[in-house]
Amino acid sequence: MIEDPAFDVDPWCLRESRLRLDVLAQSESLFALSNGHIGLRGNLDEGEPFGIPGTYLNSLYELRPLPYAEAGYGYPESGQTIINVTNGKLIRLLVDDEPFDVRYGTLESHTRELDLRAGVLRRTVRWVSPSGGAVDVSSVRLVSFTQRAIAAICYEVTPVVAPMRVVVQSELVANEALPDLGKDPRVAAVLEAPLECEEHQATENGAVMVHRTKRSGLRMGAAMDHAVDGPESTRVDTESYPDVGRVTVAAQLQPGETLRIVKVLAYGWSSQRSRPAVHDQVMAALSAVRMSGWDGLLAEQRAYLDDYWERADVEVEGDAEIQQAVRVALFHVLQAGARCERRPIPAKGLTGPGYDGHVFWDTEMFVLPVLTLTVPHAAADVLRWRHATLDLARERAEQLGLKGAAFPWRTIRGQECSGYWPAGTAAFHIGADIAHAVVNYVDATGDVAFEREVGLGLLVETARLWLSLGHHDAAGRFRIDGVTGPDEYSPVADNNVYTNLMAQQNLRGAVEAAGRHRRTARSLGVNDEETAAWRDAAAAMTILYDERLQVHPQSEDFTEHAVWDFKAMTAEDYPLLLHFPYFDLYRKQVVKQADVVLAMQVRGDAFTPEEKARNFAYYERLTVRDSSLSACTQAVIAAEVGQLALAYDYAGEAALMDVADLEHNTRDGLHIASLAGAWTALVAGFGGMRHRGETLSFSPRLPEGISGLTFNLVFRGRRLRVRVARKTATYTVVDGEPLALMHHGKAFRVSPDASVRRTIPPIRGGPRPKQPAGRAPAPRSARR
Amino acid sequence: MIEDPAFDVDPWCLRESRLRLDVLAQSESLFALSNGHIGLRGNLDEGEPFGIPGTYLNSLYELRPLPYAEAGYGYPESGQTIINVTNGKLIRLLVDDEPFDVRYGTLESHTRELDLRAGVLRRTVRWVSPSGGAVDVSSVRLVSFTQRAIAAICYEVTPVVAPMRVVVQSELVANEALPDLGKDPRVAAVLEAPLECEEHQATENGAVMVHRTKRSGLRMGAAMDHAVDGPESTRVDTESYPDVGRVTVAAQLQPGETLRIVKVLAYGWSSQRSRPAVHDQVMAALSAVRMSGWDGLLAEQRAYLDDYWERADVEVEGDAEIQQAVRVALFHVLQAGARCERRPIPAKGLTGPGYDGHVFWDTEMFVLPVLTLTVPHAAADVLRWRHATLDLARERAEQLGLKGAAFPWRTIRGQECSGYWPAGTAAFHIGADIAHAVVNYVDATGDVAFEREVGLGLLVETARLWLSLGHHDAAGRFRIDGVTGPDEYSPVADNNVYTNLMAQQNLRGAVEAAGRHRRTARSLGVNDEETAAWRDAAAAMTILYDERLQVHPQSEDFTEHAVWDFKAMTAEDYPLLLHFPYFDLYRKQVVKQADVVLAMQVRGDAFTPEEKARNFAYYERLTVRDSSLSACTQAVIAAEVGQLALAYDYAGEAALMDVADLEHNTRDGLHIASLAGAWTALVAGFGGMRHRGETLSFSPRLPEGISGLTFNLVFRGRRLRVRVARKTATYTVVDGEPLALMHHGKAFRVSPDASVRRTIPPIRGGPRPKQPAGRAPAPRSARR
Repeated sequence: MIEDPAFDVDPWCLRESRLRLDVLAQSESLFALSNGHIGLRGNLDEGEPFGIPGTYLNSLYELRPLPYAEAGYGYPESGQTIINVTNGKLIRLLVDDEPFDVRYGTLESHTRELDLRAGVLRRTVRWVSPSGGAVDVSSVRLVSFTQRAIAAICYEVTPVVAPMRVVVQSELVANEALPDLGKDPRVAAVLEAPLECEEHQATENGAVMVHRTKRSGLRMGAAMDHAVDGPESTRVDTESYPDVGRVTVAAQLQPGETLRIVKVLAYGWSSQRSRPAVHDQVMAALSAVRMSGWDGLLAEQRAYLDDYWERADVEVEGDAEIQQAVRVALFHVLQAGARCERRPIPAKGLTGPGYDGHVFWDTEMFVLPVLTLTVPHAAADVLRWRHATLDLARERAEQLGLKGAAFPWRTIRGQECSGYWPAGTAAFHIGADIAHAVVNYVDATGDVAFEREVGLGLLVETARLWLSLGHHDAAGRFRIDGVTGPDEYSPVADNNVYTNLMAQQNLRGAVEAAGRHRRTARSLGVNDEETAAWRDAAAAMTILYDERLQVHPQSEDFTEHAVWDFKAMTAEDYPLLLHFPYFDLYRKQVVKQADVVLAMQVRGDAFTPEEKARNFAYYERLTVRDSSLSACTQAVIAAEVGQLALAYDYAGEAALMDVADLEHNTRDGLHIASLAGAWTALVAGFGGMRHRGETLSFSPRLPEGISGLTFNLVFRGRRLRVRVARKTATYTVVDGEPLALMHHGKAFRVSPDASVRRTIPPIRGGPRPKQPAGRAPAPRSARR
Repeated sequence: MIEDPAFDVDPWCLRESRLRLDVLAQSESLFALSNGHIGLRGNLDEGEPFGIPGTYLNSLYELRPLPYAEAGYGYPESGQTIINVTNGKLIRLLVDDEPFDVRYGTLESHTRELDLRAGVLRRTVRWVSPSGGAVDVSSVRLVSFTQRAIAAICYEVTPVVAPMRVVVQSELVANEALPDLGKDPRVAAVLEAPLECEEHQATENGAVMVHRTKRSGLRMGAAMDHAVDGPESTRVDTESYPDVGRVTVAAQLQPGETLRIVKVLAYGWSSQRSRPAVHDQVMAALSAVRMSGWDGLLAEQRAYLDDYWERADVEVEGDAEIQQAVRVALFHVLQAGARCERRPIPAKGLTGPGYDGHVFWDTEMFVLPVLTLTVPHAAADVLRWRHATLDLARERAEQLGLKGAAFPWRTIRGQECSGYWPAGTAAFHIGADIAHAVVNYVDATGDVAFEREVGLGLLVETARLWLSLGHHDAAGRFRIDGVTGPDEYSPVADNNVYTNLMAQQNLRGAVEAAGRHRRTARSLGVNDEETAAWRDAAAAMTILYDERLQVHPQSEDFTEHAVWDFKAMTAEDYPLLLHFPYFDLYRKQVVKQADVVLAMQVRGDAFTPEEKARNFAYYERLTVRDSSLSACTQAVIAAEVGQLALAYDYAGEAALMDVADLEHNTRDGLHIASLAGAWTALVAGFGGMRHRGETLSFSPRLPEGISGLTFNLVFRGRRLRVRVARKTATYTVVDGEPLALMHHGKAFRVSPDASVRRTIPPIRGGPRPKQPAGRAPAPRSARR
């Protein structure tokens, strides 16, 4: 956790006004730049000091052994882990033979800022060397949204008072030393130097190198080029070695005279292409970028973001901190998803090595809802990636004795990489989550071609899985036994309500899509008998209800279990899984993260308003939020049941998860899903936005601390803007056809020519639900 | 499995009449000699060929890392594994420079026999060397029951036709090369050469060496001494190296002239004693044995066994194969338990490296019932060992957030060594199993001092565990959620009937014992409030019952689960856990081993006869017997419900488990619990023997194939003999006071002066219950 604020509050910028070495690793994650294809952590240009050095390429992984004390059938034998690839960010500076290092000399000023509109990371430093020379150093770094293979840095050095001899060493470094590789010597051996050089070459003003991973056999190329602008005497040398390419620029500068170096980086990688092909690919990318130049790159970047903010911006009036946080969140969600292009969006994006760089269900359930309504093509791309792994998921299902497709709980390339099946393979809801994202995307875009070519295949194979996973009991009810829902503290349970509701939706979605695309469905082997079986299973789906308590038990017998002894816990006991055995967590009423509550958000149609309020109150007192995937959901349902102050607190938690490092692991990368959840807390929470089929509905209501909320989104080709004030909401179609909407349950229509204003009905939330002792969210009122 | 019989059928002997190299590893287990303290696998004297070389000392283990793909709180980081210690069995022979090796030359005859009355392994060989010299070699090997540190071999060589120069090398070898140490390089590294030499020394006619394990730091001494009897020219040399001690005997023999060497081995080990102390200990043991000499050792051994067979023998008329098998079983059970003396009885005894040499619950639930009624002091010793590990079990409970003692699922020294908690730590029934053994032992012996000093502490701490593990639900019922019962195919379940019934007995046992030993109980912190809580929990214990099916569901919702698709299975699919994922096994109705059925054996009082018959039939069709701990229990309950033919088939399976290698892993060591189960199948099955409190009851009934069954046992100081014929049973008190017994529910009294004969009432068993397709036991009728 970042105790005192490390960043200035600013609506369009995340700025650190002085260097905070105590939270260096966290700021590296927050200042990470990415386009979903390439990711650079916000490491200092000169490489040291660092928290975690990081340069990532989407899906460039190494294999590592997964060991087991006691082996079991179907356990994955190796896992995929993202690796730190050739670092091209590195620019070392020598000032009169003194290495520029923030730990030595005097740092007169040091500012870093992530500009959310320009899409760059700026750094400005005035440094006085131990020998007394003052120098201004500035760098502007970007990872291009428009040229996905490209990153660039504009680096400037200017002596302040006296002339200076400066030497800049700009490098490409493979197999950088990494901090702490964990306990297992075999894993450390794999990750210590994962890349083998196949080729290295110095070019004019640059270098190119091709490496290959040792076990996974993936090939990557990295190249750099430099445009140097300095005094005439400036000298440029280049050299190359198997793991290092270096361009050295030496210049004698007068006070106020600037040496400016624009470094352009290109990355390319492939599991199939040859060494020369990869070499040529990165060189071609460098050639392409020469046409735009640095200023062109900047302009393209800004134009790309201007367009994004028009479609996605959220304005929060009255809470500057949340205003900033939600824009930071939207920026990072865009960075994670913009240019994945049939590669996954990992849980940490490309901002750090956390979770081994794996993608989980949160991409479909937390990230895609945002992308679907702001950058729909990016949502489609992620689902195309899932579709491309269908063969692997079918193989996995077969290995598990199931039909259809069993998508991996955690993976990079598509193979299951979970080493603990109760919290991995058993979480079969991932299939329904993917189906949910498909249905949502098609509903929101009307993209019929996608549904036919991609969506249908996913819906059919996941529906098949449910049918083979569940069974009709003696009374005819369809049961799904022994699976894990979102709450990993009660896994491997029968009839998890979330799972069953999602499976029901999955089955129905498959029936409907197969009905709309009969020919394609037939080509997938779907016949009437099969769709009838899906329909029957969905209709007979077991949805548990505890008549005594009048709540939905999370799974069979859940409400009979002992309640966790929350009173005995101290703050240090959380997260519980690090301090208590699974066996004890599993058999008691204690909820890691929203489960029934998430079901109420995504399958709100399955609950009455009264049930929602009772369930919410019941699970509030059991939910400890040991996962970052909880606060945003709790915010949404709290708002829906009229607990606006509580919703506001949760929205704050979701929004500040990374900026304030609430989970103590922002160092390993950002929580992309929770960042997306900040948007969801505002738009689905206080905006009350839901969509189902072609119907987009809103039930907006603001909490005390927020005086106005405006959000933009795209839906079925229209750009819509919603402005929520305390008593009214105003709906505007910014462009596109007229749109039918709902406001607090009442249908209406908005045309592009006229905004529509509706009043907000009051609500009584009843007493504020209680959380486990010590687990109430930080009150937003106290913080502001 | 041993396809064609490898052994002659003989009532008092297990004999292999020709050498079967194809089942060498299995015969090494079956010919293993042990006294519970030392164990020698039945390796050939000359060391090669071998299946698995093995010399074991009870509780002499090394630590090995337990790796996890995903770590978890409370997972053990290292496991204990039994090691192959200094081998003293080794006697190599050179005949005219030709090494005696059964793989070369001509084996004219080769007989090995385990003599169950003499307690020795005899081997007689006539071998013709490749160069044509014929020689008779014989060896007689024993591990002394009376001198627990001692093993001895009488080795004789006699030329048949021509004079011969023979050289015998008798050795002590540490760190022998072992076959296949598994995949994990770190584990292999630990076990490859686990012993470090601290001392080695040649003595007159022998050698002594002291080694220490590298990680666990246990010290062991091994010494050998030889008495050589040969022609006057016989020459004896001794030498010693860090891992080898060698005595070389060279002699020139005439045809018919015998070189006879008696090799005596002594072992000693300790975690605390110094090198000189361990050295002196083994030398002292050798000195002691010199007083008895070889003939004395043989005589002591036979006297010890004569006494055992008087107390324990079972005579089976009409089925010679089962007759032999049950005596082999009783012999190995004795070998496993006779001289453990506060060390555990591992699942494999000291016959092989299987299960890492760990002890599990089967010692208390399967082995101790036999020892309690035949060698009661050995049963008490095992429980004293458990008592000695109470501190570790209390620590483990505390680590798990529980009160009382949590005994390890698998261990050597007392620490939990299970690397997969759902089938390890969660099997909390181990505590109740230990309590059950305590109560049984006290009931059967009336050993009040034991109850006070040992039993009470075990009962109290295990009762405390149950109280903290379970909870009273809203209706006041006491639930035990999320634990694993005997059936490892449905682990981590709520209200497992076996567990709850055993916990109930545990709680009641603690209440009663605390009432009998008030002062000691107070010293253990027991007060009236605590015993009242135990009583309440026992009274309110949830015992599930499915009214619809009229059976006891194994655990909550078990009978709602899908039934495993047994029809789709082939023989190669078993054991299922090697071919199907846990997740699928766990959520379906498929039973690895008797669970409810075991509950019906050990808590027969909790079921009506009709319930027993219905439950038995219900679980028969679900039980696949992927564990050796199932057939014996099924035999007992089948007999009780009148399914005598089925009971007979199961008794055959239990009895022949190792002799016919039915589970395909006899090579790794014998299934001591299943061997004990052979006795149980006969005595508790066809003898219908049960005991509870001071009441010993019988409901004997023979199956078709057995015409008479006589068994002996000791109970409350009496020796009792029961002879069951087809229509009558005869009860005789062989010595001791008169004894009150039950015969088919009717009480009667037997005095030592007169046997009592009772007629056996007929029973109708109803239709024979069905097993899963292909999983019916081999029909006994076909085999004989």
